[in-house]
Amino acid sequence: MEGTSDRYGVHNGSEILPPKQAVVVKAPQPAVLHKVMAQPAQSSASKMKGKVKETFFPDDPFRSFKGQPLRKKWLMAVKYLFPILEWLPGYSLSLFRSDLIAGLTIASVAIPQGISYAKLADLPPIIGLFSSFVPPLVYTMLGSSRDLAVGPTSITSLIMGAMLQKGVPVSPSEEPTLFLQLALTSTLFAGLLQASLGILRLGFIIDFLSKATLLGFMAGAAIIVSLQQLKELLGIIHFTDKMDIVPVMASVFQHTDEWSWQTMLMGACFLVLLLSARHVSMRWPEFFWISACAPLVSIIISTVLIFLFKGENHNISIIGPLKCGLNHPSWDKLLFDPKYLGLTMKTGLVIGIISLTEGVAVGRTFASIKDYKVDGNKEMMAIGLMNIVGSCTSCYVTTGGFSRSAVNHNAGCKTAMSNVIMALTVMVTLLFLMPLFVYTPNVVLGAIIIVAVIGLLDFSAAYHIWKMDKIDFLVCFCAFAGVIFLSVQQGLAIAVGISVFRVLMQVTRPRMIIQGNIKGTDIYRNIHQYEEAQRVPGFLILTVEAPINFANSNYLNERTKRWIEDESFSANKQTKLRFVIFDLSAVPAIDTSGIAFLIDLKKPTERLGLELVLVNPTGEVMEKIQRANGAHNHFRPDCLYLTIGEAIASLSGEASMATP
Amino acid sequence: MEGTSDRYGVHNGSEILPPKQAVVVKAPQPAVLHKVMAQPAQSSASKMKGKVKETFFPDDPFRSFKGQPLRKKWLMAVKYLFPILEWLPGYSLSLFRSDLIAGLTIASVAIPQGISYAKLADLPPIIGLFSSFVPPLVYTMLGSSRDLAVGPTSITSLIMGAMLQKGVPVSPSEEPTLFLQLALTSTLFAGLLQASLGILRLGFIIDFLSKATLLGFMAGAAIIVSLQQLKELLGIIHFTDKMDIVPVMASVFQHTDEWSWQTMLMGACFLVLLLSARHVSMRWPEFFWISACAPLVSIIISTVLIFLFKGENHNISIIGPLKCGLNHPSWDKLLFDPKYLGLTMKTGLVIGIISLTEGVAVGRTFASIKDYKVDGNKEMMAIGLMNIVGSCTSCYVTTGGFSRSAVNHNAGCKTAMSNVIMALTVMVTLLFLMPLFVYTPNVVLGAIIIVAVIGLLDFSAAYHIWKMDKIDFLVCFCAFAGVIFLSVQQGLAIAVGISVFRVLMQVTRPRMIIQGNIKGTDIYRNIHQYEEAQRVPGFLILTVEAPINFANSNYLNERTKRWIEDESFSANKQTKLRFVIFDLSAVPAIDTSGIAFLIDLKKPTERLGLELVLVNPTGEVMEKIQRANGAHNHFRPDCLYLTIGEAIASLSGEASMATP
Repeated sequence: MEGTSDRYGVHNGSEILPPKQAVVVKAPQPAVLHKVMAQPAQSSASKMKGKVKETFFPDDPFRSFKGQPLRKKWLMAVKYLFPILEWLPGYSLSLFRSDLIAGLTIASVAIPQGISYAKLADLPPIIGLFSSFVPPLVYTMLGSSRDLAVGPTSITSLIMGAMLQKGVPVSPSEEPTLFLQLALTSTLFAGLLQASLGILRLGFIIDFLSKATLLGFMAGAAIIVSLQQLKELLGIIHFTDKMDIVPVMASVFQHTDEWSWQTMLMGACFLVLLLSARHVSMRWPEFFWISACAPLVSIIISTVLIFLFKGENHNISIIGPLKCGLNHPSWDKLLFDPKYLGLTMKTGLVIGIISLTEGVAVGRTFASIKDYKVDGNKEMMAIGLMNIVGSCTSCYVTTGGFSRSAVNHNAGCKTAMSNVIMALTVMVTLLFLMPLFVYTPNVVLGAIIIVAVIGLLDFSAAYHIWKMDKIDFLVCFCAFAGVIFLSVQQGLAIAVGISVFRVLMQVTRPRMIIQGNIKGTDIYRNIHQYEEAQRVPGFLILTVEAPINFANSNYLNERTKRWIEDESFSANKQTKLRFVIFDLSAVPAIDTSGIAFLIDLKKPTERLGLELVLVNPTGEVMEKIQRANGAHNHFRPDCLYLTIGEAIASLSGEASMATP
Repeated sequence: MEGTSDRYGVHNGSEILPPKQAVVVKAPQPAVLHKVMAQPAQSSASKMKGKVKETFFPDDPFRSFKGQPLRKKWLMAVKYLFPILEWLPGYSLSLFRSDLIAGLTIASVAIPQGISYAKLADLPPIIGLFSSFVPPLVYTMLGSSRDLAVGPTSITSLIMGAMLQKGVPVSPSEEPTLFLQLALTSTLFAGLLQASLGILRLGFIIDFLSKATLLGFMAGAAIIVSLQQLKELLGIIHFTDKMDIVPVMASVFQHTDEWSWQTMLMGACFLVLLLSARHVSMRWPEFFWISACAPLVSIIISTVLIFLFKGENHNISIIGPLKCGLNHPSWDKLLFDPKYLGLTMKTGLVIGIISLTEGVAVGRTFASIKDYKVDGNKEMMAIGLMNIVGSCTSCYVTTGGFSRSAVNHNAGCKTAMSNVIMALTVMVTLLFLMPLFVYTPNVVLGAIIIVAVIGLLDFSAAYHIWKMDKIDFLVCFCAFAGVIFLSVQQGLAIAVGISVFRVLMQVTRPRMIIQGNIKGTDIYRNIHQYEEAQRVPGFLILTVEAPINFANSNYLNERTKRWIEDESFSANKQTKLRFVIFDLSAVPAIDTSGIAFLIDLKKPTERLGLELVLVNPTGEVMEKIQRANGAHNHFRPDCLYLTIGEAIASLSGEASMATP
């Protein structure tokens, strides 16, 4: 290709062909050599500034501010902080119609889920409804996603309940006020963590929870949550406090005498009803509203049935009386007793990270489907502030849940206004409809939870991961197994640990390849990948594909030396090895250990009478080679080449001149 | 360059020029396209086997075994396990002469250091001499380094003493037997850890202690060790148990009443003597023996002085009576009481890792100077076994120390036999000369330690790191500051943490560059590094230089989208952007998130009416692209190119045909 433009003289602007074209020789031609250059010199401070910017402001959120008048800048800043100001002025009736339908639909999901999830977290059912009222209103003002439906989620509810229960010697039924206080305080810490991650622009931390980790984690959590519901579905009264699979199953079969057939029958019927509704909606997506309304319908039917047949006298446990009223202010309930501070902070950390991950992932997913932008760090601030406000208004931790947002999306929501509609519907419920839930049986709430979480078991995604990448599958499986057999935190920690270990291993044991020339071209490629790629006689062309640093310089040293020695001593080569070309094209960075490795590499090559040249060092690497040269001139300019082809042409030219 | 061989028809074996050369057109020529290929298919198991081999056996230690008869294999295996069998049969008198001199020289270092370092570890002085007798003999049989001189080292002694003292409520002077037991047990655990790291071939773990970390750590430890010696140099009786700089300095100035001028005078004189000897040896390396003998000479002179002037009556503390005798078996002293098990295991872990790092680094350094090979994993087994045997024969943790091995090397040692000579000299001392140390003043031991560790403060190396790499310097500085202000373990943990975080950040925020064409060639390079590199109108050529995975796919997604949008909307381009070329040459690996990113990238490009093509996916990446294609055919073969040049030629050919 290089020759193309030369040959026709079209592109380089000169019609006169360079004289070298006229010379026909047998030996390879000493080609035009291009000098290897370093990046323009930059001070350490400005490089550091660039790195910091790329680390914390990769999306450059303020670039549109540049060059605007001050008043405009202020306006833009306010709009940046309150995305509602972006879309509200242009809000129309037709948008409202869509949002109204979507809002009512998610309200019908939110009310039963709110009550159920609060029970999962060992909190009074009404707290779950409170949490579907204030936080959606806060999110509407601050959030940049149009599809996120905000409220409590099953997994965070379960984890919060489990962690608090483990940390306090008494049970939630004995000390309900203490548990509520701890839950609110944990929510505050979760919100503070989320908001500060957003403000400090550390959003990339949640990227370490990869999709594979989340898939395994969610599936494990779904199993754990479902197993907890066996208490309600079987009507067991004395159930274990533990979460992992072994004690739960043991508890189920130790208390067979407590199993109540009435409860089981009712549970089975509603499970079948809800699962059928789910199936229909999955089969025909236009009937999404069937599964969306099914939970509310189930609650209404079951409540009526219990009321008619006096089910509470037949061993079926019911929710019991609930008071009407809106969220109370709860800042006085926040508990900063040093005795519980460690517990609430730890709980806040875990539920904060998990709910943030879920919220941001859901936001990104739907933004990608509808092709609009969600600013990860801004979303974190929104979710964090929502939880901080929530903790002061009797709400526990909330986020944008997968299932609820999917319903919102399917119901055709257009803006965050659907959250307002949902919040208002919940408000009406809180004000007037609470007494209707007295006779709602707990077994139906259990069935609703099971059907809500069952969608988190995504076998086809797991199979896809298995097919694409075995180690990702291992990560997924470890998260799953860790969650169900150990604990939620340990499962997550193991999965993240394996993911990070894999990244570290990729750096510690980087791939090294031998390159060969594709005949008739100037292209050099991996000889194992391309059959046409042929070794160039007398040359060993090595490429390493990772930053060279402390973690791999010893390995590279041993590996390269062995390769060079093997090549140099192998007898079945017609042409003796003369040159080692070390291609640095794929080395993005190097540290002091890496530079020491490059310098050290000259020893074995010189001992064996070989010449070592470096090809195409990139910006940072070239800079450090120059600095190392500053002291001792380890790498003279004539052992640096821009391309492998130029290096080979030049070196074999030298060689043929030296041995005529 | 590609054209060169075509043009002359020399290399491609065909004298007939391809017809495309005859056609002269203005528009770029649709070039010969090379197909992108995947690596030959391999089963997951064989790929996994290859990875495991590369991870754990990068040096392929058994390659010389291949194709040998069984008897030969056995012989080679025995030789592999006992490197002494390699060199002993060919051992000659001239080698012995060199080793004898070196052995006597290091013995003169080992005896004073043994006594001093044992005191640093709060152990009876004789344990230090025991530790210079058995372990060197074990190492001689198992070790593959010819220069390593084995014995206790200052840093491990200090750390062991400090960690054990912190973990036990009583002081070492009250319970000397308990401390000895704990020290021996920690040594056993350290040895077990070291040997198992070697056997499991996990040697790469110590690579995470980079040179920068070690430099800072060693310097910090040298300061800590020196400060501890103020007790001896000033004659203070009530000294703090703490290690970090603040309480030590406080303790020094709280007890000014205990300062003894006699001790201070003596200490100052010997410090000057030892430092001058050190200076002479550094200035004129041929006089290395002056600094090597100085400690022993100082001990002899000071002991004679104290004996003559009855120094023990003048506030100068002395070692006191020592019994003659060789190492006792001590396996009955190993303490597996659960009360102390955690402490000894933790101490064993820390001193095991640190002594291993020191030993392997020293071995590698001298092997590189003399150009022979040291097998890291085999060295670990040798050091580990040496400590296991040591713990059963009244020795505490030993390794190949920096200073001692340097003396050995300078004294002209040829094989590990110099360790045997040293051990025999120490044996003679243990059997007959111990009573001579009764009057040895502790202040001289303190001076010897200070001069021994002062060499660890390597300012020029620190300056070199500062010049080469600011983040490496930060790592070095944090290790230093952490060790002197917090604790040895925390200092190390912080430094390793920063190093690993840097590696992770390189992956999380990989460098992305825009490439341009170097005029008149087929070479594409970073437009910021090469001024000649010119953007190709209508094309955006992006390169990412890291594995694409869960940790960076979100970042890459946002970053790339923004770049494409900016390019696409910028008005000051004469030519509208038509194609985005994503160069994967420097992407060594990809996971499921990375594949999802590549697929997702098609969305914004398609929305903007751009065409996205991928260039040069390497083996693993190509394989996964193919697997992703298996399901949905996201990347048809016509959007994969082997080189940027071919992609541009082909695409602009298409474009000019499409818009004539």
